[in-house]
Amino acid sequence: MAGETQNGRKTNHVKNLQFLKNTNRAAVLKEMVLKKAQSRIDLSNRLGLTRMAISGIVNELIEDDYIEESTQSFNSDEPRKTGRVPVTLKISDRSINAVGIYVKRYEVHCIVSDIQGEIFYHKSQILPADADNRTFLSILRGLLDRAIEENKEYYLAGIGIASIGPLDIYGKRLFFPPNFYRIGDICFEEELASYNLPVVLDNDMNASALAEHYYGAYNQNKSLVYIGFSSGVGAGIIIKGKVQHGSAGFAGEVGHISINPNGPKCECGQNGCIELYTSISNLLLATGTDSVEELAELIGKKRVPRYAEEGIRECRAALKTMLITIANMYDPDIIILGEIPKKIASVYIEGMEEYMNMHMFHHGFQRIQVELSSLKQETPYIGAASLVFQKIFGGEIELKSKKV
Amino acid sequence: MAGETQNGRKTNHVKNLQFLKNTNRAAVLKEMVLKKAQSRIDLSNRLGLTRMAISGIVNELIEDDYIEESTQSFNSDEPRKTGRVPVTLKISDRSINAVGIYVKRYEVHCIVSDIQGEIFYHKSQILPADADNRTFLSILRGLLDRAIEENKEYYLAGIGIASIGPLDIYGKRLFFPPNFYRIGDICFEEELASYNLPVVLDNDMNASALAEHYYGAYNQNKSLVYIGFSSGVGAGIIIKGKVQHGSAGFAGEVGHISINPNGPKCECGQNGCIELYTSISNLLLATGTDSVEELAELIGKKRVPRYAEEGIRECRAALKTMLITIANMYDPDIIILGEIPKKIASVYIEGMEEYMNMHMFHHGFQRIQVELSSLKQETPYIGAASLVFQKIFGGEIELKSKKV
Repeated sequence: MAGETQNGRKTNHVKNLQFLKNTNRAAVLKEMVLKKAQSRIDLSNRLGLTRMAISGIVNELIEDDYIEESTQSFNSDEPRKTGRVPVTLKISDRSINAVGIYVKRYEVHCIVSDIQGEIFYHKSQILPADADNRTFLSILRGLLDRAIEENKEYYLAGIGIASIGPLDIYGKRLFFPPNFYRIGDICFEEELASYNLPVVLDNDMNASALAEHYYGAYNQNKSLVYIGFSSGVGAGIIIKGKVQHGSAGFAGEVGHISINPNGPKCECGQNGCIELYTSISNLLLATGTDSVEELAELIGKKRVPRYAEEGIRECRAALKTMLITIANMYDPDIIILGEIPKKIASVYIEGMEEYMNMHMFHHGFQRIQVELSSLKQETPYIGAASLVFQKIFGGEIELKSKKV
Repeated sequence: MAGETQNGRKTNHVKNLQFLKNTNRAAVLKEMVLKKAQSRIDLSNRLGLTRMAISGIVNELIEDDYIEESTQSFNSDEPRKTGRVPVTLKISDRSINAVGIYVKRYEVHCIVSDIQGEIFYHKSQILPADADNRTFLSILRGLLDRAIEENKEYYLAGIGIASIGPLDIYGKRLFFPPNFYRIGDICFEEELASYNLPVVLDNDMNASALAEHYYGAYNQNKSLVYIGFSSGVGAGIIIKGKVQHGSAGFAGEVGHISINPNGPKCECGQNGCIELYTSISNLLLATGTDSVEELAELIGKKRVPRYAEEGIRECRAALKTMLITIANMYDPDIIILGEIPKKIASVYIEGMEEYMNMHMFHHGFQRIQVELSSLKQETPYIGAASLVFQKIFGGEIELKSKKV
């Protein structure tokens, strides 16, 4: 009995040391990628580890070719200082990469991105009208096979899947999304087991929020809400650096805030849902235009025609109410509006920050930014890969090491 | 240099051991209070610590009179088993207590509660119409002095303050609440420094959510939204055991979800805010009644008069929209409706859970409970004290120990 306990504790101890090593490697990578740490002393100060400990970790990461050193400053904006030339560190290009799968309503996309958020491979395939699970999985595997084949010189650390919902993110399962062909009840982890790569699943909005948090221009903010506008409207929420999933992964459905009991009927069963006024497709419908280009042309005119004006007014009014509600309920540092074509972005952004800050409940005590995404329409794609990087930064996906 | 580092590391090491000790004591208390652990073996299994480690912690807590042991089962529902009588553990009554201050719009309340959520002292004072900071602080100190004097035989671990907002919860400061006499810009920590007790501040709704999470009948749920209905409507949110403050502590303002652009004007600047339909005071107004009793009498009638019927209908419709929005945005396990007088509770609860679960976006994939608070109107009071207990469970407030 005593021996067993002893043994149990020993195993635990060994596990903990390995765990600590992973955590430390992960912390160093995270600090370098996200906070632009450029030297051993930087890392030591920020992580509160001794220079010796940092050097050990850094040297291993160099041996594994994940990072490299140079006597040139990588930050060209910084004036060169006189005296001893410091050794700076950088992540080696394309040394750590992930495959990102973005399951959209009509298409499946497959990208490869490095851990610095640079997409260097992108293919997609349209889902046929009669798609079922077999078709869907065969498209998915086809895209994956090709991506892996065409990037075989690069180290791929995992497969991140950003998908329309509803999902069981913990069971890595796609339920039956409404109006999604005959596709549903798919466990991605099981179906993709043969690739021998970690599979991470989350909804497209949470993945997008993560992409903004890691690689967007506003990534210094710890708390952000990303709103994606396309055929629907949804949000991903990050508070103090953590994605907010709610209890079962269904948080963030901001498109279905009902703002008018007399508004049009929504598929969800309510009336006057935000999505019915503010999605790109509904804006086109409401302005009587057939394309973003046509709408952009109208907006560019000196006088917007009456029929379009009303649609734009309704969209903007609904957007204001949504932004205020999001500010009141989540209290983020910043709200990022994503997937909006640049040509019609003025409808979505002009005057919004000001209006929201004047009307949110705690106006005067808190200032919340509202910005267009800096990643443009790439957010959900980088997002898919970011799901893998998140697990690397958290030490949950262990990088392969030359030292076995 | 080397000596310094050595020294630095040593201090750190010592700090860490003390920290570990606190954390372990805190974990044992938390498991006993909140999860009803009743024996050393229970604790050992649940916390993953060895029997020996648990015994060390438990014996110290017994020495300090915080917990006690008995050979009687404390759970009288459990049939006594034959064989060796097991030694069970329980928290000693009133061994760990906190003062709770609840700053309401018209009154200040002061309670003392033990760590098991039993309030055994309660006094309050009405704020005079001309109250300013001096009056307010003198009332506050008067209540505190008396509470401490009248409970001097009990160990008080801290002062928890649940207050109307806006607050700087990190700076422990009350800003200037709108329409709150001439009271504002008060740092509670500074003003109450002479009491030599830790001061914890949070808004009344977050404190209430914590009370439900710790001591309510539905405390087995890890994620809950507590909605408090009184003169206003607000919410406290706990997701996976953690209070959700947002970036600056302003999250959860569900009363200011605007659901009707043509609705009545709200003080916040929007139209048709939920609070205008669903607060108790607005429900009385809308039903043309002067008191909860009068409204209760109407509801009890076979036919509710037309003028009251419309007010009730509007309140219930708004409530449904609010519940759906909360489900869609936060995705909790349960929504708890609080501070509602029992006599009129049917207006707020009847059919709500069913309706919400049919209309929330992920209906069919997730089931969310809707319940009336089991703590009745006591929630914010226990909540104030819970702010202190939260810090004890987290190891941030250290219990005084006989072993110095």
